[in-house]
Amino acid sequence: MTIPPEFSLIYRHFRPLAAPGALDLRDDAAVFAPPLGRELVIAADAMVAGVHFLPDDPPETVGRKLLRVNLSDLAAMGATPFGYLMTTAFPRGIDDGWIARFAEGLALDQGLFSVGLLGGDTVSTPGPMTLSLTILGHVAPGRALRRSGARVGDGVWVSGTIGDGAFGLRAIRGQVADDAGFLAGRYRLPEPRVALGQALVGVAHAAMDVSDGLVQDFGHICRESGVGGVIEAALVPLSEPTRAAAAGEHALLPFHGGDDYELIFTAPEDAAVLALGMPVTRIGRVVDAEQGVRLLDATGGAIDLPTRGWSHF
Amino acid sequence: MTIPPEFSLIYRHFRPLAAPGALDLRDDAAVFAPPLGRELVIAADAMVAGVHFLPDDPPETVGRKLLRVNLSDLAAMGATPFGYLMTTAFPRGIDDGWIARFAEGLALDQGLFSVGLLGGDTVSTPGPMTLSLTILGHVAPGRALRRSGARVGDGVWVSGTIGDGAFGLRAIRGQVADDAGFLAGRYRLPEPRVALGQALVGVAHAAMDVSDGLVQDFGHICRESGVGGVIEAALVPLSEPTRAAAAGEHALLPFHGGDDYELIFTAPEDAAVLALGMPVTRIGRVVDAEQGVRLLDATGGAIDLPTRGWSHF
Repeated sequence: MTIPPEFSLIYRHFRPLAAPGALDLRDDAAVFAPPLGRELVIAADAMVAGVHFLPDDPPETVGRKLLRVNLSDLAAMGATPFGYLMTTAFPRGIDDGWIARFAEGLALDQGLFSVGLLGGDTVSTPGPMTLSLTILGHVAPGRALRRSGARVGDGVWVSGTIGDGAFGLRAIRGQVADDAGFLAGRYRLPEPRVALGQALVGVAHAAMDVSDGLVQDFGHICRESGVGGVIEAALVPLSEPTRAAAAGEHALLPFHGGDDYELIFTAPEDAAVLALGMPVTRIGRVVDAEQGVRLLDATGGAIDLPTRGWSHF
Repeated sequence: MTIPPEFSLIYRHFRPLAAPGALDLRDDAAVFAPPLGRELVIAADAMVAGVHFLPDDPPETVGRKLLRVNLSDLAAMGATPFGYLMTTAFPRGIDDGWIARFAEGLALDQGLFSVGLLGGDTVSTPGPMTLSLTILGHVAPGRALRRSGARVGDGVWVSGTIGDGAFGLRAIRGQVADDAGFLAGRYRLPEPRVALGQALVGVAHAAMDVSDGLVQDFGHICRESGVGGVIEAALVPLSEPTRAAAAGEHALLPFHGGDDYELIFTAPEDAAVLALGMPVTRIGRVVDAEQGVRLLDATGGAIDLPTRGWSHF
């Protein structure tokens, strides 16, 4: 019997990615035994061409970014990833080679992050490519990192460097310099801090990933925890290319630009955080709720941002 | 602190739908304890405006159809649903009232099917509305219904009536008559056979849901099972409106049209199926692989279909 093109596409490109529970993508759903004695952690993020990635981004990085932004959500909870489902709405007439390279990118990151494809759906769209991924992980019962645990007196920390993703988007658009392509690479291929997230279980009071803008996302932690917070702009770790680009009209972009996919977390003991030996930097402190959420300059004055971060609507 | 419009939208419309494990949609991911001693069953389906639903369909039925096509996948596996994640790509400038009604539809079906929202993502798109849902359920270990279990000699059965969805789409387009709106209703609001699926565990050898066309989907069961199959056209259950519409150029539509969301399954014992007291009809039999997959007319001649079913590509 002839297999319709839709299923042929799935078999050719996506079946090689299938995890054991995926039943080889031959059934209506995946079936798997959850890890014994662990809680499941599950999240979903979508990406739209022209909004979350650029239509001419390399297909490999589109697939990897889709997986990585979701892995970043599990990192924020301190969870261990194990699988994912994916729905893809491809424009009709999409080049088969494009999908092959997209799947190659996924295969590469499946190896790096020890996850497998459990299922999904492939449909056509008259609009821009729209990708959605649901990621599954597990964590010891009651130990998931939350946004709501910050306490007055905690230090505020971030991983890696902040602002590269936002400048990377502008570099790709030709609006800022990016000699070695470092910034573009940070936009196209974020680094989910999965190992750090797991290490922070029992060390951090609160955590989330920075995806929509540093100050806005820190504001979520403060609101959910019923506290206020201070970030000292001079302490926020910037890469050399971002430091060079953060001038003039772009001076404040690292503090409200999106696409960082680093972790922001609060912890009561600096020594315990430093002992992890991870690339993290202390950037501020948790204060009482009345003091609000503020970004301070070197003289202690509050910096007003043009926006706190990204909103789709 | 002001909440950005995107989060305000989520809080207003989607937080009331949140299941306990959703952490009130306040964190990066949901955390839940899987049901003890059960396997998890998980599937994902996407819908694009203009492809899977019509842009002017009532928002309530769009939300309900999104949930129901996914519930239908769990029904096909014999699983008990308990939760879902949803990503929504809404056009910018979407009317808040539209989203409110969409969420009302979801709330209604959450009650009917005992499921809750676990998480997701809300983004904007310059293209058509694109919705993706991941559904979670559970089943006794090793007992999930599969496509691959059909055996020569099994009866072939379907639930409900076949063809209404395909005619419903044409009725909405004004191409066929639909006096009481029955066909349009079947297109907009399929009935996932969740109770039947669970009852078929231990009774059926193989099952799947009919979403892309009766003969094509039966072909999937036959291919995965390594068997052939015969469907007798005269035995396929048709509603009165579909029987009236299935004439002329549309005479064969019930056999290859999509959007049925009924179950097709094979079972060795007719009596065991009938004893379930469910609305099911025997339409054919499983034969050996050499005989292929055929649709027969009343004289036993093979009917050639213009297409076996829907393919996106």
